This record gives sequence, C-alpha cells and structure tokens, in this order.
Amino acid sequence: MPAWRTETTSTMTTLDSTHDPARRSWVDSANDPATDFPIQNLPFGRFRRAGSGDPWRIGVAIGDRVLDLAQARSAGGWDVDIAALLEPLAAGDLNRFMALGAPARRRLRAALSDALTDSSDASDASGGRRDALASALLAQADAELTVPCTIGDYTDFYTGIHHATAVGKLFRPDNPLLPNYRWVPIGYHGRASSIVASGHPVRRPNGQTKAPDAETPSFGPSRRLDYELELGFLIGPGNALGEPIPMARAEEHLFGVTLFNDWSARDIQPWEYQPLGPFLAKNFASTISPWVVTMEALAPFRAAFVRPDGDPQPLPYLDSAQNRATGALDIRVEAWLQTAAMRAAGSPGVRLSAGNSRDAAYWTAAQLVAHHAAGGCNLQPGDLLGSGTLSGREPSEAGSLLELSDGGKRPIALPGGETRTFLADGDTLTLRAHCERPGARRIGFGACAGTILPAPPLP
Amino acid sequence: MPAWRTETTSTMTTLDSTHDPARRSWVDSANDPATDFPIQNLPFGRFRRAGSGDPWRIGVAIGDRVLDLAQARSAGGWDVDIAALLEPLAAGDLNRFMALGAPARRRLRAALSDALTDSSDASDASGGRRDALASALLAQADAELTVPCTIGDYTDFYTGIHHATAVGKLFRPDNPLLPNYRWVPIGYHGRASSIVASGHPVRRPNGQTKAPDAETPSFGPSRRLDYELELGFLIGPGNALGEPIPMARAEEHLFGVTLFNDWSARDIQPWEYQPLGPFLAKNFASTISPWVVTMEALAPFRAAFVRPDGDPQPLPYLDSAQNRATGALDIRVEAWLQTAAMRAAGSPGVRLSAGNSRDAAYWTAAQLVAHHAAGGCNLQPGDLLGSGTLSGREPSEAGSLLELSDGGKRPIALPGGETRTFLADGDTLTLRAHCERPGARRIGFGACAGTILPAPPLP
Repeated sequence: MPAWRTETTSTMTTLDSTHDPARRSWVDSANDPATDFPIQNLPFGRFRRAGSGDPWRIGVAIGDRVLDLAQARSAGGWDVDIAALLEPLAAGDLNRFMALGAPARRRLRAALSDALTDSSDASDASGGRRDALASALLAQADAELTVPCTIGDYTDFYTGIHHATAVGKLFRPDNPLLPNYRWVPIGYHGRASSIVASGHPVRRPNGQTKAPDAETPSFGPSRRLDYELELGFLIGPGNALGEPIPMARAEEHLFGVTLFNDWSARDIQPWEYQPLGPFLAKNFASTISPWVVTMEALAPFRAAFVRPDGDPQPLPYLDSAQNRATGALDIRVEAWLQTAAMRAAGSPGVRLSAGNSRDAAYWTAAQLVAHHAAGGCNLQPGDLLGSGTLSGREPSEAGSLLELSDGGKRPIALPGGETRTFLADGDTLTLRAHCERPGARRIGFGACAGTILPAPPLP
Repeated sequence: MPAWRTETTSTMTTLDSTHDPARRSWVDSANDPATDFPIQNLPFGRFRRAGSGDPWRIGVAIGDRVLDLAQARSAGGWDVDIAALLEPLAAGDLNRFMALGAPARRRLRAALSDALTDSSDASDASGGRRDALASALLAQADAELTVPCTIGDYTDFYTGIHHATAVGKLFRPDNPLLPNYRWVPIGYHGRASSIVASGHPVRRPNGQTKAPDAETPSFGPSRRLDYELELGFLIGPGNALGEPIPMARAEEHLFGVTLFNDWSARDIQPWEYQPLGPFLAKNFASTISPWVVTMEALAPFRAAFVRPDGDPQPLPYLDSAQNRATGALDIRVEAWLQTAAMRAAGSPGVRLSAGNSRDAAYWTAAQLVAHHAAGGCNLQPGDLLGSGTLSGREPSEAGSLLELSDGGKRPIALPGGETRTFLADGDTLTLRAHCERPGARRIGFGACAGTILPAPPLP
C-alpha cells in the first residue's frame, strides 16, 4: 500500500504549505491577483486543443494556462507514488482518480504545487524540470473544455432556504416553507445525460403549459425560461449499495465543487410537477463549470454550520462535530446577464445578483452525502449533487429570475433600456464564484455560462 | 452502408417467418410449450458462468439455455453483415448494438432464428454448424445474469391510471386523479446506480418518517416496504440534445421490454416528497429482469391505443396513426410472493395479482419517448423508462401492496395463516409476464425477483 493510502482523512480542513498565500508560481499569470487559478487552487478539468477533435485530456488550471497531466507525467521527475497517481489522469480518466479519495488528492496536490512553485533556489536540475513542465502547458484560450468527469447520476437538492421560502411564498403566502424542510434535505433525481459544460448553447425547450384560465393545456416554447445559481458537489469515493455513509465519514466522499446552472422552465413546471416532481421543466439542459475546485483548495474557506435560533437541530444521522465546526463553505457567488444587445455593444453584461453559499444553504454538502446514502443508495465517483438555488436573505442576493422579478410580475430594468422578467433568446447567463478571506489567497471557480438559442420548430 | 441500414423502420409490427408459431428449434427445451424462451422470443441479456467472475458476455435465451454470442460468432458461417452485427455483442457491449436500431435487430433476429431452427432438410454442412452453435450454449441454471445493459439514465413514469387513481384516492377521496394526468405522461427521474438484476437481494432502507400525530420525525427502518409491478422500456438509438423525437418516429427509439420492480418505502415517501417528488423512498434499489424482449418479439402482441369515451385525445406531439393502431402492448403481468415460511415449506409462493399492461397503461411506450424528448432532453442507448405501476381496473389486478392492502388497512391473508400489509424481511417478491394470443407462440419475460434483507444498523 503506497504511503498516501495510510494517511488519515480527518484533516479535511487542515491547512498546509500548498495554502500559503505567499507561494508564487513560475507560471506568471498565476500570480495575477485577479486570477481564479493561483497556485493555491489547482482545479481539475477535461480539455483538448480547441478544434482538434482529440480525446479529452485531464488538466489542472494554473493562471491562464492548463497543465496537461499526461504530458506532465511524461516530463518525469515524479516520485514513484505520484507517477502512479498520475496514471489514471494521464489516461484521461478523472473518475478513477476521484475514487482514490482525499489522501491521494492531497498527495498529488502537494507534488503539483511544489513543481509549479517559483522557488528562488532553483538549481539547474529543477530548471530543466521546469522547462519540461512548461512544455506541458496550454493557453486556456486555446483549449476546449467539457464536463469534468463522467457523471453517472445527478441529484439536485434544495438547500437554499431563502430560495425555498421565496418560491413557496409565490404559491403559499402564509406558509411558504413546507413542514419537512427543516428536517429533510429535500432532493430529487435529475437528468445526467443533458448536463453540458460552460459555453455549450442551451436551446429553449418546447413543452406543455396551462394558463390558470385556460380550459386545456397547449404545447409550445417556454416563455418563462430561468436560471438557477447552484454549486455542484462531485463525489469522490463511492459506497456499496445497501451500505449507508455515516455523517462522520461523509466529507471523505466529496471530491470537489463546481458551479452549476439548473436551467428551469417556470411555466412547464407548475403543470407537470404534481405529484412526482419536476421533469421536462429541468431536463432539457443543465450547465456545469468545467473546473472542479477540490475540497483541499477550499480548506481555508470552511465555516461553522449553525442552525438559526429556534430551528430544530439535525437528526443524529445528519449531525457530526466536524460538520458543526466546519461543515459550511464560504463561497461568494454571482450571476451575470449579457443580452444580445449588450454583446453587440461590446458590454460584458450586468450583474444580476451576488450572495454567499454560507448564508444561503440550510444543509452542508456532507449532510447531502449522508442523507443521500442513508437508505443504502450507492453513490459513485463522479456523481453530481446540486446544492439547489443559493439565494441570500436579501432580494439582491436572489439566485433566479423567478425571485428577482417576483414571479414575473416586476420586470428588471437593465442598462441600455432593456427589461427582463425571464431569459430571452440570445441572452448569455454566466455564473461566477470565488473565495476570499484574510490570510488566504483568493481562488475562483471560472465561468459557468450558457447562451439561449430559440426553441426548435414544433414536431 | 450495409443492407440492413437501408431498410425502412415502418414495419415495427410486421410479422415475418421468425414469428411463425410452427417454427421449432433444435434446442429441445425451446419447444416446451411452457418455456418463456421459444425460438419466437430470443431476448438479449448479459451473463457469465456462475461463480466464474469472468467479464459479462452477451447472450440470447433459447429454452433453458443461453446462446453465447461471442462463441456463436466464432462458430462462423454467418453472412458478413451478420458477423459485423455480432461484433459489439461478442465484445460484451449490448449498448453499442442497441444504438443500431430496429433494422439491425431484425436482421440479426432472422439470422439467429434460422440458425436455431430445426429444419428437417438439414444437410451435413448445417449439421456441422449446429454442432458448433450447440457448443456455444450454456444452461441458464449454470449462468449468472446481470442488468442487461449499461443504464445511463432511468426515468420512471406513472402510466397506470388505475394505480394513480387508487393511490390518489388514499389522499384525495373526492378527486383522486390530478387535472394534469390525462394530458401529461407524468414522470420523474430515478436513480440509475441502484438498479440491480433479478436475484440480487434488496436491503430494507432506513429513512425519515413522521407519523401524522408525531411532533417530530424519526429515523429508522421502513415499515411499509412495497413492490411496484412495472414494465421497463429500454432505449435503442438516442437523440441529440436539443433535438426532439417526433411521435411518428418514437417507436424507432425503443429496443425492447423488461420487467421492473420499483421497490418503494411507503412511509418514507409522504414525509419527503413535497415539493420535488420521491427520493429516498425509491432509490435504495430497483430490480430489472435480465432478459430484454425485443420490440420484434412483441410484434404479434400489439394492440390499439384507445382513449376511453369522454377523455381528451392526446395533444398532437403525443399522437400518431401508428400509435392509435398498434401503440399498446398486450402483456400479461403477475406478482408472486414467497415468504420465508413458504420457502421453508417448499412452497413456490402465492400469486398476489395478475393483470394486463394493455388495460393498465394510459400512455404507450412511444408516447413516453416522444414526451421525454419533447423539450430536447437527449435519450441514450440503454436508458430505461419505467412504465409506472401497472394495476388493472379490478382490485385483484393491483400492482402493489399499497393497493392490495388498501393503504395498509386490510391485511392480506396468505395460505398457511400468514398475513401481509407490506413486505417482511425474508419475503421474495417475483414479477412474471408473458404474451399469448391465438395464432402466435406464447413468449415470456423470465423472472424479476428480489428477497428482502433486514435494514442495516443505524449509523
């Protein structure tokens, strides 16, 4: 058994030299204070040279470059256990690496961080190594990125309590939150096949809708197309069918975090969703950001999980000391809209809202893992858990147009004189996120963007 | 382009010589009138020699044997296009064959049927061929079977109108069917990872439940564990994301039919399912029968799809002439219960109910395909669509204990003095199905069985 398999995994939130904010990379762009990808981040993704049609390769983002892990492995100079960890990655299989868990990730992170660090005492030997690694870098501008791993199953949760309250108010003004909300991490299974990476266009869906005053439903393009600002949690090691994951070990099953846009057709959902939940209102497309920020990179940005006064404490199977101490994530999330007119005018668009996952999520990622597996359901490496829409307490922190436009009743005024209640064809919706705290280097998630195409002709 | 790619696919329900009820096989057991697998059936499955731990192989059931398609291909004597069709199957990849569609299936079916036919004019050459194929047969008793293909995504529908009405009555006596039911093929995404093949044990799930008179929920083993008698429709060729499937072509995307047991925890569901649908109540396990009966084998058992008088006709995107003429399936379905006491006494168990999918399903498989893809969701080869519980109009035709026991209020008396409202540990629940009609050879689906294990200890 290699050394990294014998480490304990109780140090999920422990900081080490890879988090040192003073650490700088010899990849110059990684030292730009504004980059999402300093040497303290090192997120994983799948890429290829744009237009090449090559098989997907695994890379790590560093500044404005991608480090190709197949080429990096070939560059040599790795300890034997690191070379072994790089093997599935060099083969283009992130899922196989995800299955190895936190000790393997930490070991590789340390090695990659060291190899990319600009150490002032560089010998000739390390200079040669650096040249070899430099030739394994590709400009992100020249790369095409895809969904970061094979997502076998995707589950969407509903942890955003302010979102659940705001949406509930539209239907039940006096009793917006259902009685189960504070006890059960509400979730439902989503469609894995239609998850696409940032940049993939999103076609407006046709579907059945029924106006309240209509006698019969009709079929046509959705007129209430919306986004949902979510985080995506990717599973590392799985569990066997029938074997629940105790809360104390739930963090060990998390690999990392992405941004996730759960595009939603607000007019299709009310007509279809009783009694079994949303279906065509959601499954036409979901967009994931291509870079997975690992749990190790997020270690400086953990926060206590605290229930508001008067709210029930989680049942024992959803509770642990570690979760109370550091279960939450301090991630600042934003949604940006660029209309076709803004694009034509050269404008980068307008920020619709900004918030923080720590204030928005009523359940932690570890609780989602423990709940999901509580009945024996088997999670597998690469499975995706969506957080649900992360709206903050303030109206300006809402993570969907449904909330921002008060159910479509109050159009949002945009710079340039346009207005929106829901998304128009040609609109580009981009999610962004970053973490920053005193004493830590700022890290970011990259973009999670999609542009709306018109609905296809009716069949 | 090989010849079988140029055939039209408009003959989905056309009979040919492979359906001739007089056709007999040189595999003697296939001529047993009681077999599920006469030469007119030829369902596909994945198997290996029990206990071998070998990679899964693709086979076709014939009588009480499996024809190993890798060995059959090696036996030679196939036309060049048949040898090409056998290539993915010999490689153990049913999904790749499923993607080829109906013309390929029909071509291979004809070739396999001819090769397995007991022709009285057998020459010495065909005798040699027969010997080679005979050595590619394995007794099903010596085979271990698994899920028949890689199931990327699984969707469960709710097409059983009598089931929906009966369940709705338990909640809303005056208005059991929701207003959308006759317009929308209600469905939801299910969990693909926890689908297991017939024979795999099913562990009773723990979960959150809340009694109506309890102040707070509690966590523990489900006490209302139930089965749901369903058909499973497996997708052949898929569609591209954003490209709906018109109703007139929906049948072309169906590969075949299995039995499917959507095990359900009736006490977990009511507490968790609002507002986003069932989750842990369903995802602890689902059982699929290992043999996929192809759409070609089902051709003699198609039936007209007729809406009851006074019900709305389907919207145009769910309507086609072919669907009205032959969209329904005439499949007789049964559920059997064998308790541990029955097993100890050597009893095969008791039939809980029997019905027919034709009378139970309000929507056809083609309508499920067209609806699923209507908003652009991409279906992929091997995806599974569950029919939903297929209860008939009569109480004796109910496809779940929830209905048979009137929501748990009326225990069912079993032979030997036992009673059941819901499933007990040690119970084996087996679904069976067959098709029979004058002028056609009876075909069956094999068994879809699971035995309940006790819940795991609480975490």
